[in-house]
Amino acid sequence: MPRMTRDDLDQFIQQRFPEAHGNCEIIAVGDGTLEAVMPFRPEFLRPGGTISGPALMGLADVVTYYLVLAMIGPVELAVTTSLNINFMRKPLPGPVRAVARLLKLGKQLAIAEVHMTSVSSDAIVAQATVTYSIPPGS
Amino acid sequence: MPRMTRDDLDQFIQQRFPEAHGNCEIIAVGDGTLEAVMPFRPEFLRPGGTISGPALMGLADVVTYYLVLAMIGPVELAVTTSLNINFMRKPLPGPVRAVARLLKLGKQLAIAEVHMTSVSSDAIVAQATVTYSIPPGS
Amino acid sequence: MPRMTRDDLDQFIQQRFPEAHGNCEIIAVGDGTLEAVMPFRPEFLRPGGTISGPALMGLADVVTYYLVLAMIGPVELAVTTSLNINFMRKPLPGPVRAVARLLKLGKQLAIAEVHMTSVSSDAIVAQATVTYSIPPGS
Amino acid sequence: MPRMTRDDLDQFIQQRFPEAHGNCEIIAVGDGTLEAVMPFRPEFLRPGGTISGPALMGLADVVTYYLVLAMIGPVELAVTTSLNINFMRKPLPGPVRAVARLLKLGKQLAIAEVHMTSVSSDAIVAQATVTYSIPPGS
Repeated sequence: MPRMTRDDLDQFIQQRFPEAHGNCEIIAVGDGTLEAVMPFRPEFLRPGGTISGPALMGLADVVTYYLVLAMIGPVELAVTTSLNINFMRKPLPGPVRAVARLLKLGKQLAIAEVHMTSVSSDAIVAQATVTYSIPPGS
Repeated sequence: MPRMTRDDLDQFIQQRFPEAHGNCEIIAVGDGTLEAVMPFRPEFLRPGGTISGPALMGLADVVTYYLVLAMIGPVELAVTTSLNINFMRKPLPGPVRAVARLLKLGKQLAIAEVHMTSVSSDAIVAQATVTYSIPPGS
Repeated sequence: MPRMTRDDLDQFIQQRFPEAHGNCEIIAVGDGTLEAVMPFRPEFLRPGGTISGPALMGLADVVTYYLVLAMIGPVELAVTTSLNINFMRKPLPGPVRAVARLLKLGKQLAIAEVHMTSVSSDAIVAQATVTYSIPPGS
Repeated sequence: MPRMTRDDLDQFIQQRFPEAHGNCEIIAVGDGTLEAVMPFRPEFLRPGGTISGPALMGLADVVTYYLVLAMIGPVELAVTTSLNINFMRKPLPGPVRAVARLLKLGKQLAIAEVHMTSVSSDAIVAQATVTYSIPPGS
């Protein structure tokens, strides 16, 4: 079961990462899952009216970090060790929903799968697999 | 051989992506290779004094885009289809050098390998493999 | 909806790939999903009593191929373009179940996510993301 | 510098993994690099006259294992934790050369990049990034 609720997480992020707080709104935290929405910002737009790849990469990375935090408690120093992302469809120029699911939560590594969709559609726009390293003693 | 020189590319980026222009300085363009430097910005810093993963992901993505442009000419609509990145060492809080090498340049897909180092060291901080889709008729 | 049933697929594989037929038994075909079991073979064993990584990679690859066949019909020449696999737990020395889910089925590319478990447990031993290229006109 | 020479490695593999010994011939071991050749076998062939993806995945995996052994000494229990492979060109139906280069050799993880070519050509047929976990105390 998660060690932090949605509100715990939200408060932790607001205190420690105030500049990141507005970039990704946590919607729900479950047992090994986290759902969030990245609000749209005009600087995400790329030629062709789509959202930039790096914005989606950053979203996959941060929702995995939040999911790891939710599960192990407030450990600031967890770091990404690898990320694999596939882009499938052009996202609409609006907010993007991400759902992260833990595949493994070990002592040293956590691995999650992230599915991203435009909030107005169920079609997956990008899928990522993200690995975090957990510091010893956490 | 490349179809755009370093200066051609620099001018193209300044005209079409003025907001991106200062984020990644192209150092050299070779036959199937491109070297660039991402200047340091304080917002890249993460707890522990290291540079954020998403900043390096964005760097890997953009240098591959610039390399594809250099090789096929100014085609704005090439899009990332997948990116795999491994983080190996904590980058120092300074500028990051990226060297991208084309592994394949086909009609539909281009694939490059990107090695990233702190400019003051040769140790690889991150490695990425990036695939771009090239629009038909380019 | 799938164009081939479990039995259609089984017959197609037996005819065209008789040497592969016994290596992976198709259990069920759904709309965008396929479940299969790889029987245990002693040559899969590695030091420590676990199943070799390449056996799981081959399983992820073949179940994606079968899923693509099920969805688009008997197209022998679909080929793998990329595969990303994460190993999470040591599989038990027994049969391995794989469940593949399509994330995208386009004209040129199909992408699937594959979860592998020992048949006697629900814990994921490996997860893969596999991309196939579909020949034009299929 | 490597702790095992080409001949040390060859003898170790012949003793501990006799069934694997003939599948991949080590050509040279350098400082952080290893070159090997996988002899052709008819069962590698796939429709269209090309070599199966899983054969190349297995090659990428085993050359990384041999490179890790060469660098840290004979540690049987190193295991693959992730592998990412991109297929670029159809390999000719003949032997395949693989060159593995270490990107990181830490206490817990080793990461290598592997480039594969047909022995009769320099064009890369597949590229892989492979991560091994190193058991504590090795």
